Amino acid sequence: MASSDLKLSRLFKLAQKFNNFYLTGYQKGEIRPFLVEGQQVGLIKADIAKHLLKYPEVFCIRDCEYTKEGIVELNPAFRDYSERTEKLDKILRELRSNDIFTALQGWRDEYYEVKSSEYKSLLKMDRSATCLFGVRKYGVDINGYVRHPTHGICIWLQQRSNTKETWPGKWDNMVGGGLSVGYGIHETAVKEAAEEASIPSDLIKNLVSAGCVSFFFESERGLFPNTEYVFDLELPIDFVPHNADGEVQAFELLPAKECIERVFTPDFKTTSCPVVIDFLIRHGYITPENELHFTQIVELLHVPLQSLYTYKCKIDSRITENGHDRNN
Amino acid sequence: MASSDLKLSRLFKLAQKFNNFYLTGYQKGEIRPFLVEGQQVGLIKADIAKHLLKYPEVFCIRDCEYTKEGIVELNPAFRDYSERTEKLDKILRELRSNDIFTALQGWRDEYYEVKSSEYKSLLKMDRSATCLFGVRKYGVDINGYVRHPTHGICIWLQQRSNTKETWPGKWDNMVGGGLSVGYGIHETAVKEAAEEASIPSDLIKNLVSAGCVSFFFESERGLFPNTEYVFDLELPIDFVPHNADGEVQAFELLPAKECIERVFTPDFKTTSCPVVIDFLIRHGYITPENELHFTQIVELLHVPLQSLYTYKCKIDSRITENGHDRNN
Repeated sequence: MASSDLKLSRLFKLAQKFNNFYLTGYQKGEIRPFLVEGQQVGLIKADIAKHLLKYPEVFCIRDCEYTKEGIVELNPAFRDYSERTEKLDKILRELRSNDIFTALQGWRDEYYEVKSSEYKSLLKMDRSATCLFGVRKYGVDINGYVRHPTHGICIWLQQRSNTKETWPGKWDNMVGGGLSVGYGIHETAVKEAAEEASIPSDLIKNLVSAGCVSFFFESERGLFPNTEYVFDLELPIDFVPHNADGEVQAFELLPAKECIERVFTPDFKTTSCPVVIDFLIRHGYITPENELHFTQIVELLHVPLQSLYTYKCKIDSRITENGHDRNN
Repeated sequence: MASSDLKLSRLFKLAQKFNNFYLTGYQKGEIRPFLVEGQQVGLIKADIAKHLLKYPEVFCIRDCEYTKEGIVELNPAFRDYSERTEKLDKILRELRSNDIFTALQGWRDEYYEVKSSEYKSLLKMDRSATCLFGVRKYGVDINGYVRHPTHGICIWLQQRSNTKETWPGKWDNMVGGGLSVGYGIHETAVKEAAEEASIPSDLIKNLVSAGCVSFFFESERGLFPNTEYVFDLELPIDFVPHNADGEVQAFELLPAKECIERVFTPDFKTTSCPVVIDFLIRHGYITPENELHFTQIVELLHVPLQSLYTYKCKIDSRITENGHDRNN
């Protein structure tokens, strides 16, 4: 009983760890909505905002006239997608060369599309910068698994290459990647499966969409309000993935129970744990019978990120209310 | 494209419907934490609280000295589980005979255990009364399904008996039921599977725990902050469930796609929709490719109910803060 108690609390603590910003950081300390074209696309911490004060021609940092809340707004005078992208990019490159933020040391030369709540593209920024602005990130992950006659469900994990910019050498899901400009969700999963694990087309056709997980993690680099689209892929018992793009140094097949142990080690990428835990819950390995905090953990795999990015809605309802007042 | 757009928005609207209290009711109107032994076990609306004012020997309705928030407290002078249960039961029976609340017309003579956040039993009350006090309800549901060679995954639904107290004649999950005093979660699922659908023991052994859904619905009867533990059960293609306890009038096997259509009809029990939608998401029928609001819907299947029942934590932290203030 004692060892099982210990295990239970480890899982709950881990779910709290990858939601450290949702559970505590968000309440504490000043955090400002980041607005582009009147839409909230991010959340900016005070220690970041103070560096942006130096660029008043790009960032308007002020209190909202309606909510009285502190906001950071990308200069609304910028005309379009190109101008917004260009002006922001210039500042980011300057901040990078001044070595102000750790996050920008991982400059990727790979853009991330920043969209409105109506899925309109507002601008793009280097992927390394999104965590400074608390921009919601979307990615895909594939749980590659095998139904073993004696060990039950076994899961393929990948070990990230030691040369990767983020989380080098850590254990991770078999396949995972961020959504990139110009690729759909299913399309990204198929592309990453080929690049990272050489999954052939006759196997990838068994890919099953299985939901998504959302969590809000903070590291020394910045904020990670992440949503991962989750796919399951049952593989033949004799298939062995091998890497094609140099981003993976090893693959290992682990029985589900050993997989639970692996996510507790410091060798596992923190922001990939939610996908493994979700898989183990959906397939009956973590259950309400063996996990006391089962319902809390399921809730922490699906935190309501949408409710943290509603600045425009708040303004709209405030304006509507005021309109009503004047009419009465 | 137009018909697919229509479908998408139907699913999002449905997720908003079974979360009508979470999304709007909770923000509007006065709602008071309901405390037993200093622990928040429920949420009480103003129109209910005003009737409880007549029983000051049982309910203390006042403003909290720390949060200034209105609260309803079960008389803390009651000594134990038995006294709390007895005193509350007496009032509920009186309210029932005075015909004050619709909910109590459905008196069940079946108790629901009200527990603290540390799972200590504080009292029990008739199941029909829990929605008046906004007590969190836990239940189990089994998705019974078949892998059909031509139709793909097909799902067994039950039609509730016309004589049932709640949602008579509505379509529902193959098997479902509330957790009752003295039964575990898996145990309840097995018991209900036998009673409602005559699932034999050699089939029920394939039952797989698959997670839980949480939502917060309000009807004319009251509040439903529900968490359903979800199980999947793959059945042989020739198995036909039949009812053993008189609570079901029919069973029907539907291809997954027809099942989506069925949940949109007014003939489907609103509070059972989340379980079907969750199943269709986990098994790749509702995907980010065919549902624009995919992430929002997944979030609305797992709303953070735990954050609405934290009155004790708020007080504890307030007292700690004040303690600090005094020490400084």
